[in-house]
Amino acid sequence: MEKKERAPVYYSEYLQLDKILNAQLPESSKEGIKADDEMLFIIIHQAYELWFKQILHELTVVRDIFKQESIPNNSPDIFNSVHRLNRVCKILEIAVMQMNVMETMTPLDFLDFRDLLRPASGFQSIQFKMIEATLGLTYDARHGKGYYLSQLNQGDIDRVKHAEEEVSLLVLINRWLERMPFVKNTESWISENGKTFWQQYHDIYKSGLAPAEMANLEMFETLFMNDANYPAERRLSPEANRSALFIMLYRDQPMLHLPYELLNTLLEIDEQLAMWRHRHINMVQRTIGKRIGTGGSTGAQYLRAAAESHYIFKELAELTSFLLPRNQLPKLPAQVIKELSYN
Amino acid sequence: MEKKERAPVYYSEYLQLDKILNAQLPESSKEGIKADDEMLFIIIHQAYELWFKQILHELTVVRDIFKQESIPNNSPDIFNSVHRLNRVCKILEIAVMQMNVMETMTPLDFLDFRDLLRPASGFQSIQFKMIEATLGLTYDARHGKGYYLSQLNQGDIDRVKHAEEEVSLLVLINRWLERMPFVKNTESWISENGKTFWQQYHDIYKSGLAPAEMANLEMFETLFMNDANYPAERRLSPEANRSALFIMLYRDQPMLHLPYELLNTLLEIDEQLAMWRHRHINMVQRTIGKRIGTGGSTGAQYLRAAAESHYIFKELAELTSFLLPRNQLPKLPAQVIKELSYN
Amino acid sequence: MEKKERAPVYYSEYLQLDKILNAQLPESSKEGIKADDEMLFIIIHQAYELWFKQILHELTVVRDIFKQESIPNNSPDIFNSVHRLNRVCKILEIAVMQMNVMETMTPLDFLDFRDLLRPASGFQSIQFKMIEATLGLTYDARHGKGYYLSQLNQGDIDRVKHAEEEVSLLVLINRWLERMPFVKNTESWISENGKTFWQQYHDIYKSGLAPAEMANLEMFETLFMNDANYPAERRLSPEANRSALFIMLYRDQPMLHLPYELLNTLLEIDEQLAMWRHRHINMVQRTIGKRIGTGGSTGAQYLRAAAESHYIFKELAELTSFLLPRNQLPKLPAQVIKELSYN
Amino acid sequence: MEKKERAPVYYSEYLQLDKILNAQLPESSKEGIKADDEMLFIIIHQAYELWFKQILHELTVVRDIFKQESIPNNSPDIFNSVHRLNRVCKILEIAVMQMNVMETMTPLDFLDFRDLLRPASGFQSIQFKMIEATLGLTYDARHGKGYYLSQLNQGDIDRVKHAEEEVSLLVLINRWLERMPFVKNTESWISENGKTFWQQYHDIYKSGLAPAEMANLEMFETLFMNDANYPAERRLSPEANRSALFIMLYRDQPMLHLPYELLNTLLEIDEQLAMWRHRHINMVQRTIGKRIGTGGSTGAQYLRAAAESHYIFKELAELTSFLLPRNQLPKLPAQVIKELSYN
Repeated sequence: MEKKERAPVYYSEYLQLDKILNAQLPESSKEGIKADDEMLFIIIHQAYELWFKQILHELTVVRDIFKQESIPNNSPDIFNSVHRLNRVCKILEIAVMQMNVMETMTPLDFLDFRDLLRPASGFQSIQFKMIEATLGLTYDARHGKGYYLSQLNQGDIDRVKHAEEEVSLLVLINRWLERMPFVKNTESWISENGKTFWQQYHDIYKSGLAPAEMANLEMFETLFMNDANYPAERRLSPEANRSALFIMLYRDQPMLHLPYELLNTLLEIDEQLAMWRHRHINMVQRTIGKRIGTGGSTGAQYLRAAAESHYIFKELAELTSFLLPRNQLPKLPAQVIKELSYN
Repeated sequence: MEKKERAPVYYSEYLQLDKILNAQLPESSKEGIKADDEMLFIIIHQAYELWFKQILHELTVVRDIFKQESIPNNSPDIFNSVHRLNRVCKILEIAVMQMNVMETMTPLDFLDFRDLLRPASGFQSIQFKMIEATLGLTYDARHGKGYYLSQLNQGDIDRVKHAEEEVSLLVLINRWLERMPFVKNTESWISENGKTFWQQYHDIYKSGLAPAEMANLEMFETLFMNDANYPAERRLSPEANRSALFIMLYRDQPMLHLPYELLNTLLEIDEQLAMWRHRHINMVQRTIGKRIGTGGSTGAQYLRAAAESHYIFKELAELTSFLLPRNQLPKLPAQVIKELSYN
Repeated sequence: MEKKERAPVYYSEYLQLDKILNAQLPESSKEGIKADDEMLFIIIHQAYELWFKQILHELTVVRDIFKQESIPNNSPDIFNSVHRLNRVCKILEIAVMQMNVMETMTPLDFLDFRDLLRPASGFQSIQFKMIEATLGLTYDARHGKGYYLSQLNQGDIDRVKHAEEEVSLLVLINRWLERMPFVKNTESWISENGKTFWQQYHDIYKSGLAPAEMANLEMFETLFMNDANYPAERRLSPEANRSALFIMLYRDQPMLHLPYELLNTLLEIDEQLAMWRHRHINMVQRTIGKRIGTGGSTGAQYLRAAAESHYIFKELAELTSFLLPRNQLPKLPAQVIKELSYN
Repeated sequence: MEKKERAPVYYSEYLQLDKILNAQLPESSKEGIKADDEMLFIIIHQAYELWFKQILHELTVVRDIFKQESIPNNSPDIFNSVHRLNRVCKILEIAVMQMNVMETMTPLDFLDFRDLLRPASGFQSIQFKMIEATLGLTYDARHGKGYYLSQLNQGDIDRVKHAEEEVSLLVLINRWLERMPFVKNTESWISENGKTFWQQYHDIYKSGLAPAEMANLEMFETLFMNDANYPAERRLSPEANRSALFIMLYRDQPMLHLPYELLNTLLEIDEQLAMWRHRHINMVQRTIGKRIGTGGSTGAQYLRAAAESHYIFKELAELTSFLLPRNQLPKLPAQVIKELSYN
């Protein structure tokens, strides 16, 4: 067997521990200042960067799947994608938990070496920006975009720009949603009383709204029934938008189980990122208060604004407003049910 | 031994399980509607209310400690208080985690019974309001106060009012901080160059500020050096404010270890409450979207505003902005050091 | 609309908070002894019992699904089951986390009221035993079965017995696995070189084993190739055993995605239960040391033995030993692939 | 100011990201085999090694503190030690949580590259062994010691040996406990009825034992009253053993607060390590079943035996068995109370 001819693998070499474990060079040591917590500060950021690399790895695998012209129904591609995006969620849970460790560094202990780090800053984490870009955050939607450019060296600016220019997961998901044939088949089907699917849906939805919720109906009409007036700023196209709601509604059909899980996992990633930002803000606030961050930013405020505006899949999240209870859903045409079933 | 004459205790009787486990009455069952997730909805809220009761129990024990005219130095009172407030943090961690379980209820599943609950609402949790009031949230500082009154029956309004009228932990902590003798002793002590403690501190603090941070200096002067202009809206008095910063700075002195832990734990409670609110907002948003909550509120928006404004110990949190690195701290007078030491 | 005629629902009534929040009767209060931590002790156990009720609710829904003579391929039954079992996992995560709160009760604080609880004991939790029974733990497989009977009153013994007599999830899963037609279809198919599926599998599996692993081959033959000698004590039948391995191997086929998730989730439940027991042991050990529990048991030792022997789905877990790398798997017959696909 | 003359610090250089992020060299890539999960496998192990480095850093700081001939009462040394050991606990919580990520790698996915790693193995993690040794695990107490030597290269064996030869935290804690003067002062004090402290304690302890617990009394006598027969294998000396129990009992005295926290945190570290091992065992079992690990070990069985025998502070943990309720404790002599108080 060929296997036996491979050189034996040794743990520390395999993991390149000579690199990993010799990459901690505290500035305080260089200055001969005692600051026992700088090691923690370095290591926790390195752990973050390792996890960011892994997240990028998973997102790249998933993006490659969605780059296909079409995803064969019977391939394990969506199954695999859901699995990988779930893993991203689990990694983000670790990222959130790591804040608990960071917070064991008290503000007073941070002051021992804080000034030595200027003007370095967490804003300079290229990988985090690449994660956001890969998911679908565009340069224009980025909070304080001029500011972040000013913090990066040219090589890093180029790397982020490159990531922003690549097709993002959000764009690819939109295309995938647009392609879904059963939604189109359903839309083209007219009920006995001469109404289209979305007209029926509209009427049932309307009847369930409380008086104070009538603004929702208008929004429903804009988003689902009148492509001409569909808001230009939306990242989901009208077709994709309808497919997404359709999946959420009819997730009990076999072929929609996994697409539903996929959409759900994207929302979960957004939520975990929001949680991470929330914890990050609190940590920064607790550690440096209202003082200016080592990178010159106003710290918590910047982060808060970014946290509000960086939800990437918020158009998916908003679809919740337009759900109907299961027992009121329009029945699907028999042909569509068949298309969505196992053999 | 008397013990042996006690009636034997039986698990299910001790825990009153006949009450606890027969208190789930789904509205959907009453209507003959199949909604398997309503049980979860009931039980998770009951688990929250049990934990809220425990939090109130702990806060009451701590508040009783701080209600003493003065807390003897050598009593275990502060040790005990820190322990109990740490427990509150651990309970709040559970409260946050429970959102993970709540989020397994999908929006579609919630719709199965959502309309049956009107107009009940989580805003009607009296115990949560009592926790906020016991910590120190006043009626005036409460977001949407008129709104919440409109949701409660008179008995519940009375209970919250009563809790709001009792002396809060924040008020008691303020008094305790005001009483600290060593801070006064330090303040009355003049350095060799004729400066008071806070003058010295001011000069060192100033020298460490970046040009963009000079607004901090002004704030420092307002908060620590000029009681006449001290902002009227602050809940900490000038004396308490100085004591709190003093404790954060000189926490390495034996008698300040526990006061430091105490302040830290109060911040931790605020942070955990903020996290809980953050998760709650996300959960609500994910479950009902932009629709109106069962209680008629606009859901996520209300919660977001409350979350921003309900930080109870924020004046303590802000003190971080005024810390000095340990190696630049003014030396304490020998007499004060002695007062802060073990025998 | 009928809805509007329903009586308005009020939070505290809906949740029966008069029962829930008046069910804490500390023994120490009855005796006039100060023991501030008994409230925690009661409330945490009540929270456990609430969660146990929810777990039983979910398991009952799932068991009812599997009680069907056959589960229609295109029903959402398996999807729903996986969802509910995942929820059970999330609840068990809470149960594990609650140990963190329990551990804030120090041994010294427990001693304040410990003697008052005799002979009550956590062993008297009927619901926990019912969970184990519903999953598939039989009376005979239970560690210290005589002992636990001696601890319970007759009503509770009857309830556990009743739960043990009902058909368990493990038995139903076994039947479901036995029914799978595509496995039988694969087995009846002979490869070009005249070998059955399991013969082919056997040969590939053998070629990948290290010399020290040859005992695995024998075990493989016993479990997969020779029904006559199949170990009598196993809870999975030979057919179910083969189906389970088949699902793990070919999980990438559309119709096997969910069965794979289902098996995985059952393993996850076992693991979470084991973790809970592990934390429970540590907590007991830390709280009462080597002393005898309030129920008279030897505490940690009993729990440790129970933890080892109460893995319910261990036969599924062991199948991992018999996996082949994906690229070495026998190819499935085209007809079977078709059966496992979407339309 | 000198600070301004320092070269500006840049995030990616400060964190040495060129090393950290270029240290992932999957064996599957070298062989041109597609195995998308090997990246996860590498990165998670690297994250573990980063955290192990940080744990070693903290333990070294604490050990250096305890290496002092005597720790001044009024220094922040114990406060600092408790803080750092608590941080170790938080890091170990992350280590445990990371298993959740590891478990997203399914057995089938692991098989894609498992054979390529032979004979590398997690047993070759030198840092983990160094952590155990620094805490106090001796070579002789190590499970399967011959085995682990056979897995390491000479450089690594030397590093572990070196760590094992250094004075461990357990040894230093023992010395610190032995030195405690107030315990000696208490012991030399005779009560009105002519009994020593431990005789009094013995009598009260005896009166509280259940008949079935009388073996505990004998153990108490052996461990606390008869140094000549004190079990030779114990790592705590008779004096240290008595001090440790004394601290647990009288933790409410100001000067014992922190020593109590310290002992508690050491138990917490042991517990977290046990939890980590427990999760590790489950993960290994789930991933490779009963097959032999890449390092040739029998996997789960080895780990289970190690987990049982590697509790380092178990002699501290066992003291719980000998506690008395607070209200039955012998009163301390006034002089000792004074010694344990603040000024």
